[in-house]
Amino acid sequence: MTSLRALSKEKLTDLQSALWNEYRQEQAKGLHLNMSRGKPAPDQLDLSMDLLRLPDSCILEDGTDARNYGILQGIPECRKLFGNLLGIPADQIIMGGNASLNLMFDTMAFLFLFGTGGNRPWADYRTVGRTVRFLCPVPGYDRHFRICEKLGIEMIPVRLLEDGPDMNQVKELVKNDEQIKGIWCVPLHSNPQGVCYSDAVVEELASMETAADDFRIFWDNAYGIHHIYEEVPLKDILTACEKAGHPNRCYYFFSTSKITFPGAGVSLIAASPDNIKELLGHMSAQTISHDKLNQLRHVQFFGTPEKILIHMQKLADLLRPKFDIVLQKLEEGIGQDSSIASWSRPKGGYFISLNVSDGCAKRTVELAGQAGVTLTAAGASYPYGKDPDDSNIRIAPSYPSEEELAQAMDILILCIKIAYLEKLLGNQPK
Amino acid sequence: MTSLRALSKEKLTDLQSALWNEYRQEQAKGLHLNMSRGKPAPDQLDLSMDLLRLPDSCILEDGTDARNYGILQGIPECRKLFGNLLGIPADQIIMGGNASLNLMFDTMAFLFLFGTGGNRPWADYRTVGRTVRFLCPVPGYDRHFRICEKLGIEMIPVRLLEDGPDMNQVKELVKNDEQIKGIWCVPLHSNPQGVCYSDAVVEELASMETAADDFRIFWDNAYGIHHIYEEVPLKDILTACEKAGHPNRCYYFFSTSKITFPGAGVSLIAASPDNIKELLGHMSAQTISHDKLNQLRHVQFFGTPEKILIHMQKLADLLRPKFDIVLQKLEEGIGQDSSIASWSRPKGGYFISLNVSDGCAKRTVELAGQAGVTLTAAGASYPYGKDPDDSNIRIAPSYPSEEELAQAMDILILCIKIAYLEKLLGNQPK
Repeated sequence: MTSLRALSKEKLTDLQSALWNEYRQEQAKGLHLNMSRGKPAPDQLDLSMDLLRLPDSCILEDGTDARNYGILQGIPECRKLFGNLLGIPADQIIMGGNASLNLMFDTMAFLFLFGTGGNRPWADYRTVGRTVRFLCPVPGYDRHFRICEKLGIEMIPVRLLEDGPDMNQVKELVKNDEQIKGIWCVPLHSNPQGVCYSDAVVEELASMETAADDFRIFWDNAYGIHHIYEEVPLKDILTACEKAGHPNRCYYFFSTSKITFPGAGVSLIAASPDNIKELLGHMSAQTISHDKLNQLRHVQFFGTPEKILIHMQKLADLLRPKFDIVLQKLEEGIGQDSSIASWSRPKGGYFISLNVSDGCAKRTVELAGQAGVTLTAAGASYPYGKDPDDSNIRIAPSYPSEEELAQAMDILILCIKIAYLEKLLGNQPK
Repeated sequence: MTSLRALSKEKLTDLQSALWNEYRQEQAKGLHLNMSRGKPAPDQLDLSMDLLRLPDSCILEDGTDARNYGILQGIPECRKLFGNLLGIPADQIIMGGNASLNLMFDTMAFLFLFGTGGNRPWADYRTVGRTVRFLCPVPGYDRHFRICEKLGIEMIPVRLLEDGPDMNQVKELVKNDEQIKGIWCVPLHSNPQGVCYSDAVVEELASMETAADDFRIFWDNAYGIHHIYEEVPLKDILTACEKAGHPNRCYYFFSTSKITFPGAGVSLIAASPDNIKELLGHMSAQTISHDKLNQLRHVQFFGTPEKILIHMQKLADLLRPKFDIVLQKLEEGIGQDSSIASWSRPKGGYFISLNVSDGCAKRTVELAGQAGVTLTAAGASYPYGKDPDDSNIRIAPSYPSEEELAQAMDILILCIKIAYLEKLLGNQPK
């Protein structure tokens, strides 16, 4: 396919007919394959089944009965376990409920309702005709953008480069605009490209000058230990912020949604001592504690940070063949012709980011859907669901079986080509 | 003690000396008894231990794997179970996280951030120099008042009578003040007096004219099935609101915190179809779902509404002797002299509300504390922690053992009398 653009219109039309024949044959199979969300497959979940027979004892190390009320910050043994895993002091961690997304929304809601560090509540901007703005490295995680949209936060897309957000762009924006209140970051194996932030980017995020005193980094380390091909280190943002004189700049989120059970795991927020104190003040009005028995369940299941990492290797062993299939199919089907499509080659995480020819993403997703392959909606990885180039498609290889995935990729590649030919020929044959 | 006020000053002084001697003997025992919070005792929690070996199967009736992402509204079988228990259609229920307090805070936060039914967000009142106001039947639940205080809601106390809030007072207030946006209600076995709302009160709450279109009843049915001495029926507020032409007036909260494990149970919010739709819209930005495995755990543990009620009878059998002790000790120690103290005789719930002589509550709690008996802080059951009469003390008999409780009550009664004598004599002897 390397010379598609060099072909005559006649030959392109012949090729198009051949591809449509192939497509109709695939359609006739009546497949139902879903690559739309980053859902773990059943065999991944099976690795955590022993959780469901825990906790054994409900008495904590300090003698407290975990079945009863109390311990707003989360049980000490759980904060220690994940603190040791992530290199964060247990005192700087609050255990949340079953998902870190909820902590992110609630933290943003607290900022809107109460402000932070004595600054005005962000909700007050609206009533004086101003808007809170957030920087959104793109493509990025649709649920981050959804929180912003829900709260009326104006999203400013910034380029995500190979080592993190384009810091020249970021620094220029934040130093001049007091209404830019923060940035979303997925610092390791980002959703969807698998970008890992370099030390230099972490340093700059921590030290850059911001017009807003209450500028906040929402550091969603969702894939912090989700290495598949290669372990990637990550500079400690909390320490970097502290050293740079901005100790309260960052909220750090983590969860076991993609370690044990999505939606029945444990989550945490980590931050500076001042931020933790402020957050606990808000949370003390919201809840008496999150589910301590689920915290204890996870502590008893894992025991040590080392055992969490061993568990992650088992998960990686299940995911790696699936990533292999996607990458190999793309290599075989598209090859080096980046005018048709290019894609990320992540070292971990949950996704592969595919860029098809500008203007072809929606059509590709539509064609795939009509052949039984459900993909994430084109544009979903952009604020307001709008990809300005209509180019990006997120591939989530985790949920289907290897066989299904291979089938789905064959169809996807077919659709990529058909959409591209339609663009070249300026037609849309039936 | 019926004739205390009739005694000469000399005799009162003699009595005071005798009581102080008794008090010092109690002090010397170095007791540590806690009646401060409505915590279940370990033997109550033991009844739910089989929960910790569930769920068996994680596959739902419709074939969905409950271990994975999704089902924002909560698993259908759990909504059905509690819907049947409470007489609410499953479609009008959203399962929440581990505690209904969190749902109450979040619902209030949604109202502040987004408003309801197209009305302006409540947060916007603040910035135009106005205040959202809430009616607070008193005495009431301190954590309701804490939510209001946190959000800057002005609390307006209203009298709680034997059959619910003083509806003449309530109706007069709400019909004239657009800033009064709601009322807190614990309609059965209220915290702390054990008041149960009559049908007439429920009707009036549903049908009364309110100046605010977005007036909301926060219906915290925390003790809806917590009958100890007598089963008390409760009129269906959601249907009453619908019939009265105010279908969206009420948010109904329930949880298993005092059924299975506090802080590791399941919670729910029920409301009109419009409200449910609106809430799901907000929640869809906040979370993918709450903990479905804990929902399934509860479904498999209970199976049917009837089994929940049998479980409640077992809990009542553990609580009844404790309530008996408190009531009997008060009867024996204080008797009919209501100038010293009077108290509620609840039919269920978790508390007994004690009213000591005006101006004596803080001193009584202080004296008890110094003799090793921790009570809820005096005034805690009032907005801002301020009981205007300094009279009310909440007794929480559930947590101590029967033996401890009897000891604690002896000390409390001693302290009530000492504080009362101090008031009569105008002194505070060492």
